[in-house]
Amino acid sequence: MSSSTAAPKLNPERIFTTLFAYQQTFALKAAVELDLFTAIGEGANDPALLAKRCQASERGVRMLADYMTVQGFLRKENGKYQLTQESAVFLDRRSPACMGSMGNFLADDTNVAHFSRLSDAVRKGGTASDAGDNSKPLNDRWVGFAKSMGPMAVPMAGVLTQMVKSSGERPIRVLDIAAGHGMYGITVAKNLPNVHVTAMDWPAVLEVAKEHAKTAGVADRFSTVPGSAFDANLGEGYDYVFLTNFLHHFDIPTNEMLLGRFYAALKPGGKALTVEFVPNEDRVSPPMAACFSTVMLATTDAGDAYTFAEYQKMFSATGFKNCSLHDVPDLPQRIVEAEK
Amino acid sequence: MSSSTAAPKLNPERIFTTLFAYQQTFALKAAVELDLFTAIGEGANDPALLAKRCQASERGVRMLADYMTVQGFLRKENGKYQLTQESAVFLDRRSPACMGSMGNFLADDTNVAHFSRLSDAVRKGGTASDAGDNSKPLNDRWVGFAKSMGPMAVPMAGVLTQMVKSSGERPIRVLDIAAGHGMYGITVAKNLPNVHVTAMDWPAVLEVAKEHAKTAGVADRFSTVPGSAFDANLGEGYDYVFLTNFLHHFDIPTNEMLLGRFYAALKPGGKALTVEFVPNEDRVSPPMAACFSTVMLATTDAGDAYTFAEYQKMFSATGFKNCSLHDVPDLPQRIVEAEK
Repeated sequence: MSSSTAAPKLNPERIFTTLFAYQQTFALKAAVELDLFTAIGEGANDPALLAKRCQASERGVRMLADYMTVQGFLRKENGKYQLTQESAVFLDRRSPACMGSMGNFLADDTNVAHFSRLSDAVRKGGTASDAGDNSKPLNDRWVGFAKSMGPMAVPMAGVLTQMVKSSGERPIRVLDIAAGHGMYGITVAKNLPNVHVTAMDWPAVLEVAKEHAKTAGVADRFSTVPGSAFDANLGEGYDYVFLTNFLHHFDIPTNEMLLGRFYAALKPGGKALTVEFVPNEDRVSPPMAACFSTVMLATTDAGDAYTFAEYQKMFSATGFKNCSLHDVPDLPQRIVEAEK
Repeated sequence: MSSSTAAPKLNPERIFTTLFAYQQTFALKAAVELDLFTAIGEGANDPALLAKRCQASERGVRMLADYMTVQGFLRKENGKYQLTQESAVFLDRRSPACMGSMGNFLADDTNVAHFSRLSDAVRKGGTASDAGDNSKPLNDRWVGFAKSMGPMAVPMAGVLTQMVKSSGERPIRVLDIAAGHGMYGITVAKNLPNVHVTAMDWPAVLEVAKEHAKTAGVADRFSTVPGSAFDANLGEGYDYVFLTNFLHHFDIPTNEMLLGRFYAALKPGGKALTVEFVPNEDRVSPPMAACFSTVMLATTDAGDAYTFAEYQKMFSATGFKNCSLHDVPDLPQRIVEAEK
């Protein structure tokens, strides 16, 4: 025994930390729910001030703020808390890039329940829930998605803007499949005045997207097609189809059937732009894309984080050509581009 | 857009990863439940072999094993999985140091449910559950603890052995409070033939400890006191009282009352050895000890990860002297020693 720290050797700390990792999720969710980051950003920087501002106990906010400090989302000096640059930008509600709401979908009760039955999903090869084929309108869930996940779309929508911009200044029609919050298409329309977006999703979800279109000032260039990608009347002659976080929900034959429908909706030379977690062929890199296949295992019947080779095959089988993969610096997702 | 990776800049990846952190917990639990690590250790090194060995789907084990590879618990080369040194030692069921069972307590439904209501706990200043004072015999929970958490005790019990050994070769009597699995006292008794352990816990929990004592070959030097630390007849004249992961459940006045009972049970010169998560005075380091206060917030009415200054005060207030703190290299917990 000694009071000094020995050189690191094999110990079970990482296993312990992993078995407690769920606490990181719930602590961040709680801090966002209690508006802790906004409160600290506004100057409530010790437990007494935070307790008053967050309508919580001093003991509770002290423990939560200390936890957030250990996780690197706050700094603590002489008993006073400060935001980090990361939390000021992404967790203070007053920041335009605030992403705090994402926890309401990424770690909602449904997702957590699905994961708590992961052994069953591994045995079965698909979600242990009975609502895993994602073809039915689970309104609560996808309205929740639409209300929570918009902020995550915005940086990638900037990249889509650049791709659509290359088509020039003539009128451009974009079909946004399973649009959810609608923020991919809406952001592109906001950036490019010659773009008209048609958003397809279940009616209750489209109500959220319509609100977002109104707020963004593009309601006059925003139409909707209520229904499912499986049977809605999509129309035709589009310049672009956006497939954002959509194809991962289904198996390859289903995707090929759906891609056939999207192909038919494009005009010749039109393009499908697919935003996805695309792991490398080794399926264990890059980390976030590779881990996403387990999210699909836990929550869908037969979805996956497909590799680019798999996307190439699916798109080719449906008639698309010139399939290419685009890495996007600083974002965990990639874009698969394919042409009619 | 480019195919190269830009220098890291501010992005929300860490927030996304934190909101998905619960998945790390459930994936590790599932891998242990399915005996994935043992299977790979035994040579089932691809999805087809693993599916057969783990009685699961090939698709499911592929996704889970890839996830475990990303998390660093496996290696994957040319489609074949291998254990890392860490998983071979701590996650292969055949290893004597296997800690896989810990997930059954650290991330059981009760703990996860407590954390899913962390906002309420922060508001209230204690667990949002109604069973938070830990004075009642929650048999299912603490029998589960006793069955799962023994492996974690063994390395620290080696350190306790060294401390007890310093008392020499005369008969030594150890009182192990809220013994649970009993592995602190049992390991010390196994290492030192002059040690007799009296384990106190609720009767259903003691049944687990008795089994462990039998397996360790020390049943003839292992007695039990069924009941609660609040009211059991503890006896007297002990050389040592072990307080392992016990005092964190209660507030300071309760601890002082309990310490008075343990003081009375010691002989003059006897020692209390407390194994605990003890954060530094800043309460945000070291990481695991500092985070533990949030576990107490979520799961108890008034427990905490106390600092050494707080322990010193509690022990002094009860009559103990020579209170000292011992860091233990490579283990996240510390030992507080105090003398009668």
